[in-house]
Amino acid sequence: MSEKLSTQPYKGTRDFYPAEMRLRNWFFGVIRTVLEGAAFEEYNGPMLESLDLYAAKSGEELAEKQTYHFMDKGNRHLAIRPEMTPTVARMVAAKMNDLAFPLKWFSIPNMYRYEATQRGRLREFWQLNVDIFGCETYEADLECILTAIRLLRAFGADETMFTVRINNRRFFNDAIRAITEKDEEGCRLISKVIDRKNKVPREVYEKELTELGLSSGQIAKIDGLYSMSVEEAAALCPESTGAQELLGLFEALRALKLDRYCVFDFGIIRGLDYYTGTVFEVFDNAPENNRAMFGGGRYDNLVGLFVKNAKVSGVGFGMGDVTLENFLFTHKLVPESFGKEAKLLITRFEDVNTETYFALSGKLADCGIVNAVYLGSAKKFGKQIDYAVKAGFTHLLVMGATELAAGAVKIKDLAARTETEVSVGADLNCAELAKLLKS
Amino acid sequence: MSEKLSTQPYKGTRDFYPAEMRLRNWFFGVIRTVLEGAAFEEYNGPMLESLDLYAAKSGEELAEKQTYHFMDKGNRHLAIRPEMTPTVARMVAAKMNDLAFPLKWFSIPNMYRYEATQRGRLREFWQLNVDIFGCETYEADLECILTAIRLLRAFGADETMFTVRINNRRFFNDAIRAITEKDEEGCRLISKVIDRKNKVPREVYEKELTELGLSSGQIAKIDGLYSMSVEEAAALCPESTGAQELLGLFEALRALKLDRYCVFDFGIIRGLDYYTGTVFEVFDNAPENNRAMFGGGRYDNLVGLFVKNAKVSGVGFGMGDVTLENFLFTHKLVPESFGKEAKLLITRFEDVNTETYFALSGKLADCGIVNAVYLGSAKKFGKQIDYAVKAGFTHLLVMGATELAAGAVKIKDLAARTETEVSVGADLNCAELAKLLKS
Repeated sequence: MSEKLSTQPYKGTRDFYPAEMRLRNWFFGVIRTVLEGAAFEEYNGPMLESLDLYAAKSGEELAEKQTYHFMDKGNRHLAIRPEMTPTVARMVAAKMNDLAFPLKWFSIPNMYRYEATQRGRLREFWQLNVDIFGCETYEADLECILTAIRLLRAFGADETMFTVRINNRRFFNDAIRAITEKDEEGCRLISKVIDRKNKVPREVYEKELTELGLSSGQIAKIDGLYSMSVEEAAALCPESTGAQELLGLFEALRALKLDRYCVFDFGIIRGLDYYTGTVFEVFDNAPENNRAMFGGGRYDNLVGLFVKNAKVSGVGFGMGDVTLENFLFTHKLVPESFGKEAKLLITRFEDVNTETYFALSGKLADCGIVNAVYLGSAKKFGKQIDYAVKAGFTHLLVMGATELAAGAVKIKDLAARTETEVSVGADLNCAELAKLLKS
Repeated sequence: MSEKLSTQPYKGTRDFYPAEMRLRNWFFGVIRTVLEGAAFEEYNGPMLESLDLYAAKSGEELAEKQTYHFMDKGNRHLAIRPEMTPTVARMVAAKMNDLAFPLKWFSIPNMYRYEATQRGRLREFWQLNVDIFGCETYEADLECILTAIRLLRAFGADETMFTVRINNRRFFNDAIRAITEKDEEGCRLISKVIDRKNKVPREVYEKELTELGLSSGQIAKIDGLYSMSVEEAAALCPESTGAQELLGLFEALRALKLDRYCVFDFGIIRGLDYYTGTVFEVFDNAPENNRAMFGGGRYDNLVGLFVKNAKVSGVGFGMGDVTLENFLFTHKLVPESFGKEAKLLITRFEDVNTETYFALSGKLADCGIVNAVYLGSAKKFGKQIDYAVKAGFTHLLVMGATELAAGAVKIKDLAARTETEVSVGADLNCAELAKLLKS
C-alpha cells in the first residue's frame, strides 16, 4: 500500500482530542447537574431511525434536504437522526400507559445534518434536548424557558450576554390572518418567508411576501409587529388564545424576576412544522455569534403520529454544542483553572523493577490520585521530565532503589519547582502521599 | 394521516428510558473514574468516516459485510464506524508531531454493525476503547491487561466471575509455521479457521483445516496447544520472540498477583487483521454469557497507514456495553440502592400562586436538592401523591397558603410515611430543608 489515507475527519465533523473532550465533559457535566437537580431524567435513543419519522413532521427542509438517509440490506429506508424530537415522541408513544406524566426528560445525543459548514454550524453536532410531556398549561412553557436561563446562569452568564426571544405560533397565525385574511395554508407559506427574514436581503423578503399576495400596506403592518412590546402586539388580536398565553407567560417571568432576560419577538417562528404554541430562541448577544443557541416551543400532537386518539402535549427545546462552546469562549466563561488538576507521573529507574512501579501506581489510584507509570523508551531522567511537562503532568514521583530501601519517595512539583520527601514504608502505603497531593 | 408510525426502534437498536439511562451513566461513570485515575485521557471522533479507513485493516468480515456504508451527495463513500481503532489511529497520525508519546487514551463511542441480533450482540452498541500509543515494550501490554482487570474489580467482580485469556499473534504464527510449514498467507488462512473454532461444529473446523492442506497429525498437534500452559507452549518454539513476550508478560502478571485472573489460550486470535503481538480477551465465566466482553492486543503499524515512514505502535482493547451489562446483572454487581436517591416533589395548592412554587424550587436546586414542581393537571392532593410514587419521588413538600404565611413547610417521607415541619421563613430559605433531605 503506497497511497496513504487522509488524516482529516469527514467534512463538517470534528475530532475531539483530550483537551477538547475535557472541555465538553465539563460543560455537559454542568448541564447534567442543573437538569438532574430539577428532576429532569436523561434518556437516549438510536442514531438510526426509520426515515418516515422525519417525513411526517420535521418540515421539508430538514427531512428532505438535510437528512442523511440510505437503504439497509433489508430494504428499510433509514435516516441518521437530524433531530431528537421525533425519537422522543416515538419513545413516549411506545410506553404511554406505563409512564408517569408529566415527564421531564432530557438527552444529549449526537446527530447529523447535511449542511454547508460555517461558524456555529457543522454536519455532526451534539444537541441537548429538554422536553416536558403531558402538561397542557403554561407552567411547562415557563419551566422550559426558566431552565434555559438556569443553564446559562450556571456557567456564570448574565443578561448582558444572552436574550430569550419569545413568540407564540397561535398568536402568530391569528395576527397574520387578521392582517392578510389568508387561510391556514396561506399563513403557513407566509410563516416560512418570515422565518427566513434575517437570512435574506430585505428585497427578497418583500418580493416573496408580494408573490404570496400581500400588499405593501400589509407588509408594513407586519413590520410594525417586530418592534412592539408583548402588550401592544396582544392588543391587535385580543381574542387570540395565543395572545393570552403570551401575556400570561410574560407575567410569570416578571414575577420570577426573569423578565430581564426575555423579550417578545414576532420574528421567532421556528422552522419545524410541529410547533403549535409558545416558541422561543435564546440568542448569544455577541455580534460574532449572532445566532440562536437554544430553540424550542410547544408541540401538542407529536405522540398522536404513533398512537390513535393519543393526545400528549409536549414543550421542549434544543441547544447545540457548537454554539454553546462559542458562547462560553466569547464571554470568557471557561474557568482559568480548567484542566490543571494534580496529575502525577511515576518516573522509572533501572534499579527498581517495573512491577514495583505498577503496584505503587495501583495503590495511588485507589487513594484517588490521578497517576501513571512512565512508559516511554528513553529512560534518562531529563527525558522523563520533558515528557511529564508535554503530557500535562503536574508532579513527579521519584523512587530509585535507594528511596525504595528507605521506604520514602520524593515528590517534585513541576510548577513550584519544589521537592518533598514522603514516607511510604516497605509496603508502599500511600496515605501521606495522597494528603500532600490533595492539599 | 391515518396510517400510524411504528413505535419500535430500528432492529438491533435500543431506546434508553430513564431507568436504563441511569444504569448506563452509572457504569460508564465507574469506568471513567478508573481510567482517569490511571491518567488515561478521553477523546472522541466522528460517527461517519471514509469507508477506506476500514477497508485497509479491519479485516474482510467487518469492512465488507458488517459495515453500514453509503454515498453522500458529494460522492464520498462513507461508513458509520463499526469500530474505533481506525479513527484513533487517524487522529494520532494527524497530530503525530504535537502529541506527547506514550499516549494513554480512551473513548466510549456508539457504533454500528450489520449483524444478526442475539444475546450480547446488537447492531448499535457503545464500546469502551482503551489504547496506549508509542510504547514498544511489554509494559503497555501489561498495563492494558491490568486496566481491564481493574475495571471489572471496580464493579466488585472477582476471579470467579471472569477470565483473561491471553495469546500472542507472533507466537501463534511461529507455532503454526513450525507445525504446518506453511508460508505467511497459509498461516493467515489457518488463523481464520482457528478464530472461528468455537463458533462451528468440530467436523467443520477439521474439514476447513484439511482443505487448507493440514494432516490429521498436524491438526492433533494444534489441538495439543489448546491445553498447554504458557511454559509448555513456549517450549515448542523457544526461538520465537512471541514466546518470549508471552513468558515475560505472565511473569509480570504473577509479580503483580494478577495471574489468578489470567490464562494462556492458544485459541485467542482476534478476528481483525491488524494485531501483531499480544492478543487477549476477557470472558464472562457465567455459562449464559459465554462470550468475550473485552478483546484487544498490540497492533504495531496502524499509524503507518496515514503517515509515510511513521512507526507508532499501539496496544489497546475494546469492551461492549451489552456484554458488560449482562455481566453486571448476572453476577449481581448493580448496587441495590441504585436509583433510590432523595427526590422531592413540590405539591401545589390553589391558594398559592405558581411562581412562588417555582421560586422555591429554584432555591432548593441551588442547595443541591433534586426537586420538581408538580405540573400535572389533576390538582387533588391524592392525585399528586399517586404521581409522586409512580415517578419515583421519595419526598413531598407541602406548602399551602397557611404554611406559606407561617414560613414553614411540611416534608413527607413517602417510604417512611413520616411528616416533618421545616422552617423556611418569609424568604423561603432552604438551608434547614437541605439538611433534612441530605440526612
